[in-house]
Amino acid sequence: MDVTAYVRALGEKARSASRAMARTATDDKNRALFGVAEALDAARAALASANDEDLARGRDKGLEPALLDRLELTPARIDNMIEGLHQVAALPDPVGEITDMNYRPSGIQVGRMRVPLGVVGIIYESRPNVTVEAASLCLKSGNATILRGGSEAAASNQAIAACIQRGLRRSGVDEHAVQVVETTDRAVVDALVTMAEYVDVIVPRGGKGLIERISRQARVPVIKHLDGNCHVYIDDQADADKALAIAVNAKTQRYGVCNAMETLLIAESRVAELMPELAGVFVGAGVELRACERTLAAVKAAGFDCKPATEEDWYAEYLGPVLAIRAVSGLSEAIEHINRYGSQHTDAIVTENYSQARRFVREVDSSSVMVNASTRFADGFEYGLGAEIGISTDKIHARGPVGLHGLTSQKYIVLGEGHVRQ
Amino acid sequence: MDVTAYVRALGEKARSASRAMARTATDDKNRALFGVAEALDAARAALASANDEDLARGRDKGLEPALLDRLELTPARIDNMIEGLHQVAALPDPVGEITDMNYRPSGIQVGRMRVPLGVVGIIYESRPNVTVEAASLCLKSGNATILRGGSEAAASNQAIAACIQRGLRRSGVDEHAVQVVETTDRAVVDALVTMAEYVDVIVPRGGKGLIERISRQARVPVIKHLDGNCHVYIDDQADADKALAIAVNAKTQRYGVCNAMETLLIAESRVAELMPELAGVFVGAGVELRACERTLAAVKAAGFDCKPATEEDWYAEYLGPVLAIRAVSGLSEAIEHINRYGSQHTDAIVTENYSQARRFVREVDSSSVMVNASTRFADGFEYGLGAEIGISTDKIHARGPVGLHGLTSQKYIVLGEGHVRQ
Repeated sequence: MDVTAYVRALGEKARSASRAMARTATDDKNRALFGVAEALDAARAALASANDEDLARGRDKGLEPALLDRLELTPARIDNMIEGLHQVAALPDPVGEITDMNYRPSGIQVGRMRVPLGVVGIIYESRPNVTVEAASLCLKSGNATILRGGSEAAASNQAIAACIQRGLRRSGVDEHAVQVVETTDRAVVDALVTMAEYVDVIVPRGGKGLIERISRQARVPVIKHLDGNCHVYIDDQADADKALAIAVNAKTQRYGVCNAMETLLIAESRVAELMPELAGVFVGAGVELRACERTLAAVKAAGFDCKPATEEDWYAEYLGPVLAIRAVSGLSEAIEHINRYGSQHTDAIVTENYSQARRFVREVDSSSVMVNASTRFADGFEYGLGAEIGISTDKIHARGPVGLHGLTSQKYIVLGEGHVRQ
Repeated sequence: MDVTAYVRALGEKARSASRAMARTATDDKNRALFGVAEALDAARAALASANDEDLARGRDKGLEPALLDRLELTPARIDNMIEGLHQVAALPDPVGEITDMNYRPSGIQVGRMRVPLGVVGIIYESRPNVTVEAASLCLKSGNATILRGGSEAAASNQAIAACIQRGLRRSGVDEHAVQVVETTDRAVVDALVTMAEYVDVIVPRGGKGLIERISRQARVPVIKHLDGNCHVYIDDQADADKALAIAVNAKTQRYGVCNAMETLLIAESRVAELMPELAGVFVGAGVELRACERTLAAVKAAGFDCKPATEEDWYAEYLGPVLAIRAVSGLSEAIEHINRYGSQHTDAIVTENYSQARRFVREVDSSSVMVNASTRFADGFEYGLGAEIGISTDKIHARGPVGLHGLTSQKYIVLGEGHVRQ
């Protein structure tokens, strides 16, 4: 198989479908979303058997239990995919929104209209439900999309793709608006991320290795989501109860997620008072602590186990039950630490002081900056975007959770009555 | 000289200055802009002698007159630079603007705050006044910038750089907020566009060759401005006077600019009526016409010279007194032609028909889409951006004229009272 020719053909069809999608009415896009939902519901048996095939192959290959779990399409997960399609249909259509329309001194009216990006390439790993999530967001935002899932989920993805095609055809939307790559050849990715004439943006969803590899290769813009090295800073004027609740929630509510806290910063004036209780809760939850000299002494004095932290710990995204802890002299040192070691993902301050909160919000250079709230809130659903295609750690185009708006751009529109430039 | 080490050092200083710039008050940034203006005014003699040096070197090297003209810093151009600094100081500060702040069902408040991009690298060619324009926009938007001008303007750029440094120092703004590269070694560009840890975005300003080369090399996002292959479509329901005024202005008001019309599309029903007069005005202005079969006959019948257009003409950006002309059956064919051959820069329809106008605006996929107005209006000043760092033909981040907002991003801010995620 000539992979380059195959991907080019996908690209050509996607480009042409993207023109049609850009002018597709909201109603028709919603009808397509409902159509896909119905097709999924009607294909539960086929989905289950395709998924069984993937799971059996995965077990034979000795995939880890966590990976097998992500691969599984349980009836509840199929329900979730259907529910997700209904939710995206219920979201307002971002395309065509006109803003900032003003008369200029020359007499022309100038404003901006929200438009689709065009063709979005999505490259993801094992979870087959991403196929539906990504397709639905791209459809609603008027883009054509090329989806390239992981080889472990190949059969499941093709079964889902068949449902998507059925839904599109039934609703009269261009069936090439969503194309699922049929081969698991890795050369597809190389072709997709370098085909600037047919692909407007690449959204990789997966581990850091995948995203770094794609970013290096790409000749097409990439909306990327790298590390989530998130901090909670307990200020010298923090409310003790809020500090405890937020620090514990940010670390222990879920471990393997990008918006979990990885380093706890604490004003040195509060170490003696707060560290014993904090350490007790963390150790009780099975969290391994790695602390700076000042906090280490306080944790050990309270009778809990703790390792000394090294420079590498400040950079680490553990994605697990490990926490780095560091005492800082105050707000300035906290901000400096975050901007230096952090990954510009999500960082929070706990404080009752108005000026400290205001400064933290202004000066911390992260995609989400929080006051008295858990970093775990950094999420498209929690922010009211309805759904998210990913969380961007880039500064260009979109920062933080990326929803429908992140899959669009704005063009200028100018209205005149025969106006010419002098 | 170790160019990589030199550029790294610039990058480190810029990164550190960008942190300071992000928290610099509007007043201080404006004071810096006025300070630079004063320093330029006080250094007119030094600027003139540095510029003479560049001009003499340019003449020795046999530079074209047009290039020598762009290189020249006349007293009027120095006035313009000073005036431009005052204008940028008068613009509202985009940094810190908070929008879309809403309470969510969880009780947290979520909104977005506009923030600088960080470090902006600008790579430009012969015009030394770009040094001041680019520096002023980056300063006002709270970014640090590294400026790399053309070797022809080396002495002028260093003289301007000295004024900028003086202005920054006098106003107490971090003097590394604006750094002008001191060597003309081309390896500087290679280092600058690949140094993702120190540079957040590259804005190339110059010819298509420069921009394509940079885009190919870059490992940093590029806001690029490629071709301006702009169209005016005279619809079958166009007002004849408006059609004539707009077509003539779009082509002949200035030739070497990206927003000039390169292809005129005309509904075939209007060819016999409008082509003779249009051809007369164009030929009278010295414009060479290259027409499709149908319009060629009409132009020749009216007694004017005309060549047959080839397929390449539909793709061409002439940047000069040449115009391609094509008759189309109507709106659909016009939109198809523009989306196929155009460069997604600026395209206009002339029509009195409401539905045709509405369809053109929705379906033409260009950064500026106009109704009954000349393409020459596509410009940051005309759009009310105050100034522009360039015109983007990208879809990601910024489309069309890029002003202060295009040099910023938005981060999410979340305010709670001890909220944790359930």
